[in-house]
This record gives sequence, structure tokens and C-alpha cells, in this order.
Amino acid sequence: MIKIVVDLMGADKPANELVSGAIDAINENSDLMVTLCAKKDIIMPVLETLSYNKDQVEIIDCSEEITNNDIPTKAFRKKPDSSLVNGLNICKNDPLAGGFVSCGSTGAVLVSAMFILGRIGEVRPCLSCLLLGQKGEFLISDCGANVDCKPEQIVEFAKMGVAYMKAKGIENPTVRLLSNGAEEKKGPDAIKEAHQLLKESGLNFLGNVEGKDVLQSTCDVICSDGFAGNTVIKTIEGTAKALFMDMIKEAKQTKDEEDAKVLMNMVKKLMAKYDYNTLGGANLLGVKKPVIKGHGAGEAKTFYNMIKEAYVLAKNDMIGIMEKLLS
Amino acid sequence: MIKIVVDLMGADKPANELVSGAIDAINENSDLMVTLCAKKDIIMPVLETLSYNKDQVEIIDCSEEITNNDIPTKAFRKKPDSSLVNGLNICKNDPLAGGFVSCGSTGAVLVSAMFILGRIGEVRPCLSCLLLGQKGEFLISDCGANVDCKPEQIVEFAKMGVAYMKAKGIENPTVRLLSNGAEEKKGPDAIKEAHQLLKESGLNFLGNVEGKDVLQSTCDVICSDGFAGNTVIKTIEGTAKALFMDMIKEAKQTKDEEDAKVLMNMVKKLMAKYDYNTLGGANLLGVKKPVIKGHGAGEAKTFYNMIKEAYVLAKNDMIGIMEKLLS
Repeated sequence: MIKIVVDLMGADKPANELVSGAIDAINENSDLMVTLCAKKDIIMPVLETLSYNKDQVEIIDCSEEITNNDIPTKAFRKKPDSSLVNGLNICKNDPLAGGFVSCGSTGAVLVSAMFILGRIGEVRPCLSCLLLGQKGEFLISDCGANVDCKPEQIVEFAKMGVAYMKAKGIENPTVRLLSNGAEEKKGPDAIKEAHQLLKESGLNFLGNVEGKDVLQSTCDVICSDGFAGNTVIKTIEGTAKALFMDMIKEAKQTKDEEDAKVLMNMVKKLMAKYDYNTLGGANLLGVKKPVIKGHGAGEAKTFYNMIKEAYVLAKNDMIGIMEKLLS
Repeated sequence: MIKIVVDLMGADKPANELVSGAIDAINENSDLMVTLCAKKDIIMPVLETLSYNKDQVEIIDCSEEITNNDIPTKAFRKKPDSSLVNGLNICKNDPLAGGFVSCGSTGAVLVSAMFILGRIGEVRPCLSCLLLGQKGEFLISDCGANVDCKPEQIVEFAKMGVAYMKAKGIENPTVRLLSNGAEEKKGPDAIKEAHQLLKESGLNFLGNVEGKDVLQSTCDVICSDGFAGNTVIKTIEGTAKALFMDMIKEAKQTKDEEDAKVLMNMVKKLMAKYDYNTLGGANLLGVKKPVIKGHGAGEAKTFYNMIKEAYVLAKNDMIGIMEKLLS
């Protein structure tokens, strides 16, 4: 039995609108259990309407909520009975606990998880995002946790990303380094040094990748300093949004009603492909349990996907693989 | 009379396929002259078929061509009779010469232009790209010439970008700094310092911009270190390409022929909007004359647009404005 701890508070939507995602996840996996952390009063009315095996659900009544208004570095001390702190403590101490998921404040989740769960060795944890490329999923690591990076850290981001993709079933994940050119002499000093270190790392390193090829699925893991990685994922989001807005405008200007419908159908289909709710969210890698942080605007479906993702990572011992790669 | 020097060699396409762009530009502006640098034999047969005022065209016969196979730092010494070197020398020495355009090797154009034209004061020249956002054009500066930047340099990139947009007719251009968050405390150390310097710079500085809002037209100039700026423009290119591929796939899978046509029409329309040939190309700012470097795959239309752009920058004294801002 694998237990995934679910922080149902701190998101834009209230816990009662999110909890069904957790139930959908356990109803699909008989060896999955969820620990729901939220104000009990809020989620019980919804839970009573759902059908599921009660043995697969544990409820932790939490009186406090950490929000974006709390200072990330202080929140976990100030609100010890919050869903975030209670959940992370269970995740740390319960031997069955295989991972933690939340759509709460990014800063608070990262800081609290690092402090409560602890890091693997001396590694600097990173944020990784799973994206859908032209030929399938790939991971970008780091995408925002560390903005001033040493070359050695970028290699660690690669190793953590590789551990993640191995746990997802890819035997020998391929790795590329984000730079401003394909040649190994391209990039800031830290990136050029990271390139040399990656060549000697024993990883399945294929060389650099440029922003224009990120979505072309040329590898399983793209490692990057957190500033450039963050720039990439946000620019993808912004460009897709701009194009969708252009498409919707085109559709609206189309006089023929049938044609407008055809165009809007394509827009909807593509928007679903680029929807963050259908992917697992951002992963905090380098702490002692899998931690997935979904978008603040996450929905029940987001929790369903995050829980399934954490379950796979726990089942396939991502942490064990990561410890070996980092040692 | 303003003279724009045109390097017709070093691009993917031969000079005879490009030269009509220069003729289209002079036919639109009676006070514009072009100096065409290329092998004369190659362009003459085309020129003879075109109708234009001969007084507006000067031809410099060049026996050598600098290509992507030449080492950028050595090319201008090794090939003194190339279209690139001849063109830049004319641009430097002819008092009428207002600017230089080329679709040749990026490295060779940048190095040769810096060496032959010289820099404005002690400034580190940068590459700027004009992009089309949701509400109009904006400039990103630097987008790849400098990958390890000091905060002071980023402020200079902003000033050079502002000079460019002023020459394009914007009275008091607004400026934002590319970072990984809107708050001024976000970003690598160099970016945080640049933020503080920009606040005190006297520029019309509006704060940070994230990758997701780059195309939302929130300002006239986005300043950035060259690594992140390069990542942004290449990620925009790659994301648009990925989405267009998705759209074309959708259109091809549509069984109804009429519907497929409607979809393909939208794809074509949007692709034209995001086509690099319709914008002016990348600008090398910080050298003593306007220099525009178009995409290697540029066409006649690309030259037409670059020449018009250089003409406007020369006419409105971009260099004079820049010298004042940098002093």
C-alpha cells in the first residue's frame, strides 16, 4: 500500500471542489491510499456523496491555511496546524507515505518541504516541469528554484531529472543542456563548464539544446540553470496563449458560422493539449520524498493527475534511484 | 539623400534572388539610395529586367564571399574583397551612408561591424530583435551578443533599445526588465542589481516582465541579459512552430475537405504574422552606424524590410539619440 499525502488547501479553489480528484485516483488503484489534509467540515459533505473504499482514505482535520500572503520562510512555523505542515509531517514520519501533492503557495511549499522532509545529502533541490513535446513528454530541470547556479548544480539537476524519468519507466533517459547554441562552446561560462561536466558524468548526454528545439522532443531531460529554465517554460506558456488568442480572434471574425465552429474546435483541442491541468505539475526534486506542486488555479483533475504521478514515482522508488545517482 | 549599404552575399539564397528587395525599397523612397555589394555578374542580369532610377543605385563588385564556414574573428582580414568587408568600409567612410544590412553569417557580421565601424564610446554592443506582440511591435535587447552580463551592461542594452524605438517614432519608450517574477527582488543577482539601476536611470522603466507576458506588449523595450533574451526569442520561435505543426496535423486529419481548407487558411494567416521575413531582422546596436542582420534564410522581401528599417533609423538619427543616452 502506498500513501500519498494531499494538501487540499492554499489553492485558488476551495478544498470541497478539489477532493473528488483524490477519490478518482484511489478508485483506479487498489494499493493507493490518500491522506486528505483540509478542514474536515469543508470536505466531508462532498465525500459523503462519493463512492469509494473507506480504507483507502485518511482525513487529517487542519485548522489553519497557508496562503500566498504568508511569508514562505516563516509560514511553516507560524501555522503548525495548516494542511501544508501537517501533511509534510505525515509524509516525513509515516513509513507508508510515498509522496506529497499541493496546489498551495509555491514559495511556502518549497521552503516547508525542504525544511520538514530534508534534502538528499547536500544537494540543492530543484523544480522540474514535465512538458508535452512533439513526440511525447520530457522534463525541464531546474525551472525556477535556483537562479544563480554553479556548473556542478546543473549536473545535479540533470541527475535528479534522470531519476524522475527512470521512475517513469524510461530505461536510460537522454539529457540535453539548455544553451544559446548547439555547439559546446556556446553559452555563459557556467553553462560551458556544465557541458564539460555532463560529458564526463556517465549520463546519456546528447549535447546542447536551444529554445527553438525545446518542444521538438529531442531528449527526455533538459537541464538548465533555473533562470533560463523558468524563462523557457513561461515563454512557452505565453507564446501558446498569444497564439490561442490570435486563433480565437480569427474564429470570431469569421462570418460563416460553420467555419467559425470548425476553427473553435481546433482551438479547444490544442488548448487542452497545452493545459497544465492535464500534466502532473512541477516536481520539487532533491528532498527525501516526491513532492508535486500544481498550479494555484488547479482543479480536481489537477489533483487526480498529481496523485497518480506521485504514486508512480513512489512505486518505482524514484528517491532510491536519485540517491544512487547523486552519491 | 540617405545611402543604405546592402550586403547581398553570405545568405542561403544567391544575390540574384535577393536584389529585387533593394529595388522595391528605393522605388518607394526618392531620397533613398542603395549600395549593392555582390558579384556584379550575378546581379546585373536581374537588375536589367527591373525598372528603377539608376541614380539611386551604386554597385560594388566584390570577388569574395564570407560564409558560415569562415571563422568570424578572422573572416574580415582573410577576405578583404568580400561584400561584407567592402560594404562595411563604405558604410564607415561614405558620409552619405546611413546604415548596413546583411543576411550573412551572424558571427562574421557582428565581429566585422564592431571592428570596422567601431563602437560608440566604451559600450558593449548588443543584438536587438523587433517582435510583434499582441498590441504592436516591441524590442528585446540583448538577444544573444553577450551571454555573461554585468548589471551596468543591461542598463546600456535598455538605453540602446530606447534610442532605437525613439528613432522609430515613439516619444518616451517604456522599458521592462526580463526576470523570473514581477517583483523587484526576483532574479539572479545581476538582474536584481540591474533593476535598481534601471529605477535610477531616468528611463521610463515599468519594472520586470516574465516570459509569459513578453508577447503581451506591456512595454516598448524589454532589456535582458543576452542568454535569457536569446532563450526567449528562440522559445517563441519554437513554440509557434510546434503549434503550427499541431494545427497542420489537425487540418490534415480533418475528413471534410472544406473544413480542412478553413483550418489551413488560418494556419497560413498566423504563420505570416509570426514570419521573420515580415519584420526587420536583428539590430546590432552600439556600433557607429545602424546595422541590421536578417535571417540566413532571408528572401528579397527580407532585404526590402531591412533596408526600409535602416533608412528610418538613419533618417531619424538613431545614432545621435543613442550617443546622448549613453553619455
